[in-house]
Amino acid sequence: MPNLSIRGKEMPASPIRKLVPFAEEAKRKGKKVYHLNIGQPDIPTPKVALDAIKNYKEGVIEYSHSAGNESYRKGMAQYYKNLGIDISSNEIIITTGGSEAIIFAMLACMNQGDEIIVPEPYYTNYSGFANEAGVNVVPITSNIEDGFALPPISEFEKVITKKTKAIIICNPNNPTGYLYSKEELYQLKEIVLKHDLYIFADEVYREFVYDGMEHFSVLKIKGLEQNVVLFDSVSKRYSMCGVRTGALVTKNKQVYDSAMKYAQARLSPPSIGQLAGEAALQTPKEYFVNVYNEYIERRNFVIEALNKIDGVFAPMPKGAFYSIIQLPVKDAEDFCKWLLVDFDYNNETVMLAPANGFYATKGLGKNEARIAYVLKIDDLKKAVRILEEALKVYPGRV
Amino acid sequence: MPNLSIRGKEMPASPIRKLVPFAEEAKRKGKKVYHLNIGQPDIPTPKVALDAIKNYKEGVIEYSHSAGNESYRKGMAQYYKNLGIDISSNEIIITTGGSEAIIFAMLACMNQGDEIIVPEPYYTNYSGFANEAGVNVVPITSNIEDGFALPPISEFEKVITKKTKAIIICNPNNPTGYLYSKEELYQLKEIVLKHDLYIFADEVYREFVYDGMEHFSVLKIKGLEQNVVLFDSVSKRYSMCGVRTGALVTKNKQVYDSAMKYAQARLSPPSIGQLAGEAALQTPKEYFVNVYNEYIERRNFVIEALNKIDGVFAPMPKGAFYSIIQLPVKDAEDFCKWLLVDFDYNNETVMLAPANGFYATKGLGKNEARIAYVLKIDDLKKAVRILEEALKVYPGRV
Repeated sequence: MPNLSIRGKEMPASPIRKLVPFAEEAKRKGKKVYHLNIGQPDIPTPKVALDAIKNYKEGVIEYSHSAGNESYRKGMAQYYKNLGIDISSNEIIITTGGSEAIIFAMLACMNQGDEIIVPEPYYTNYSGFANEAGVNVVPITSNIEDGFALPPISEFEKVITKKTKAIIICNPNNPTGYLYSKEELYQLKEIVLKHDLYIFADEVYREFVYDGMEHFSVLKIKGLEQNVVLFDSVSKRYSMCGVRTGALVTKNKQVYDSAMKYAQARLSPPSIGQLAGEAALQTPKEYFVNVYNEYIERRNFVIEALNKIDGVFAPMPKGAFYSIIQLPVKDAEDFCKWLLVDFDYNNETVMLAPANGFYATKGLGKNEARIAYVLKIDDLKKAVRILEEALKVYPGRV
Repeated sequence: MPNLSIRGKEMPASPIRKLVPFAEEAKRKGKKVYHLNIGQPDIPTPKVALDAIKNYKEGVIEYSHSAGNESYRKGMAQYYKNLGIDISSNEIIITTGGSEAIIFAMLACMNQGDEIIVPEPYYTNYSGFANEAGVNVVPITSNIEDGFALPPISEFEKVITKKTKAIIICNPNNPTGYLYSKEELYQLKEIVLKHDLYIFADEVYREFVYDGMEHFSVLKIKGLEQNVVLFDSVSKRYSMCGVRTGALVTKNKQVYDSAMKYAQARLSPPSIGQLAGEAALQTPKEYFVNVYNEYIERRNFVIEALNKIDGVFAPMPKGAFYSIIQLPVKDAEDFCKWLLVDFDYNNETVMLAPANGFYATKGLGKNEARIAYVLKIDDLKKAVRILEEALKVYPGRV
């Protein structure tokens, strides 16, 4: 039998899915599992988007333009304009989810063996995409004590080498819920320009920003236009993860043209997803108000309730719908597994994502877990209660 | 401004799209262009698939399983069973088009710098995917004189090195229309086993086989099970290229598990496309009979008519809906451009894909072009007539 590739062997398994077999086993045994581990929102998809699918009128489902339908790109350009971001339709490539945009950017901008700096904990699939592109992720550690704020720029300076080609940030942040401030982004601007780097900005949670704060896009930073590659997605904005429709946005024409060659090789992004995405641009404002209110209620409840549990610390997320929380346990991965395999409270349990998988530095995040508050408030209440009861009896508690 | 990556600069532009700007310009000037250059069929998508989309009932368009919906995978397994191929649902990963399956296979099986052998002319996007995976395409030349049959195995032996890890074939073949025989595939088996290689088989045109011939899948070859990775797609089978739904199929569990990690990183294939794909499994037999009759009529007409043109040679395709034809011109790329820019016949012209882009060996295919007979017979008649008239007056004729 021929060998697997080395990178295939080194490809990290998703930390979110590591415990899935245990959850499946628990369900087979009749246990109810509350999923705080995944970012699949329960919010309804906007009616305009669903209607666009139901009203599909073509007789042949054809390839679209490799950059996506022009009408959709024009609509997206207008969407950015409304946010105060000056982007034209030919600076946008519609991609198969945000994931593909990240891979295209790495391929176009980075050589094999190049390094990309990322504040950890971070969205683990960046490591998967880096494996695909043959580039190395270099982490800078952010800390739960200050809610995972941007680490000091001096920390970035320490790890920059001749191989460093890019910095990637997720803003608002998955998995931490942190929202980078304008000041922090201007600090990044300095170091990016100083070392002639790219900055990759994953802004797919742009609309999920709380407490009257404002999201500031790196695309608004004057003088940084040629260095920015932005990643976008309709998945969370309109709760339609399954359409696999995202975007790569850049004002750097060389990067755009190079990414387009990768886009052409895979022919086109999904046609139906683009229809849904374009229709979703007409989502009424009330939809977002309702979603906002729903998430605020969930966030406020879950963070307050978690912090009331003895030994638990949950920083207040400023955006997205995640939080990395500290648990009074020796090993959060063991605990999360134990929750599924050995514990139940009235035949119910809860699933969390152990946070060690969100760190590239070995040994970090050992007593942390990521929660996604994507459940209805009543279910969240039950989930937190279960967690509280579990921590009372967990043998590995510290 | 930071540099592009070297691979981004080396990424080949699609030969099919190279002339697109000239076609667009011709259309702007009011010229009608018959597209023989692209593989976008005009055949209607099956009603069952369109209905599945129109009847979409979910309120939230969620991620699917990373390997695709289980019900769809079970349906696909049954589809293979009906073809005499023994495959279970957990040997299938539903991918975003056939394209993604090819990339996953290269990532899982091949290291950077490894070599993959492909008979040329070949589907050019293999080169794009190879660029993404950092692997090198090594061509073996097949010839128009024998209709692009498999080159002798001795030719493969000549180019096999320590870096050779896989052979990729497209059967029936895009761009040549050749159908590999059982005997040819057994010859490949020998060399694959002898050198412990993978064989990647792109069988997306499986249903498009003519003249009573039978498609023989490499998955039917006993003793080769652990070496085969099969690529599939609904794009051409059901004329729904835009749903971006394909599959990676392998009985090699290590390869499967490794490919799954790449599948998990990108979360899931398109949900709506999977619905359409699953529904399309119920496409009535008459649909395929009609499609078959349509393509046979087109093929027979276009090949006969082309061969009647002085200086043109078009081998009879045994499958798919392409043919590489020889033209009495010095440089087919110049000719194809001239057709768009400088020529018209009653204000109409035709677009072909110059074949040099389908060869990796420089200088080959210079007097060849690929045609796709994906137009209605009346349009095909006009297109061939235009080509005939053009060749009468083309200054670069030999």
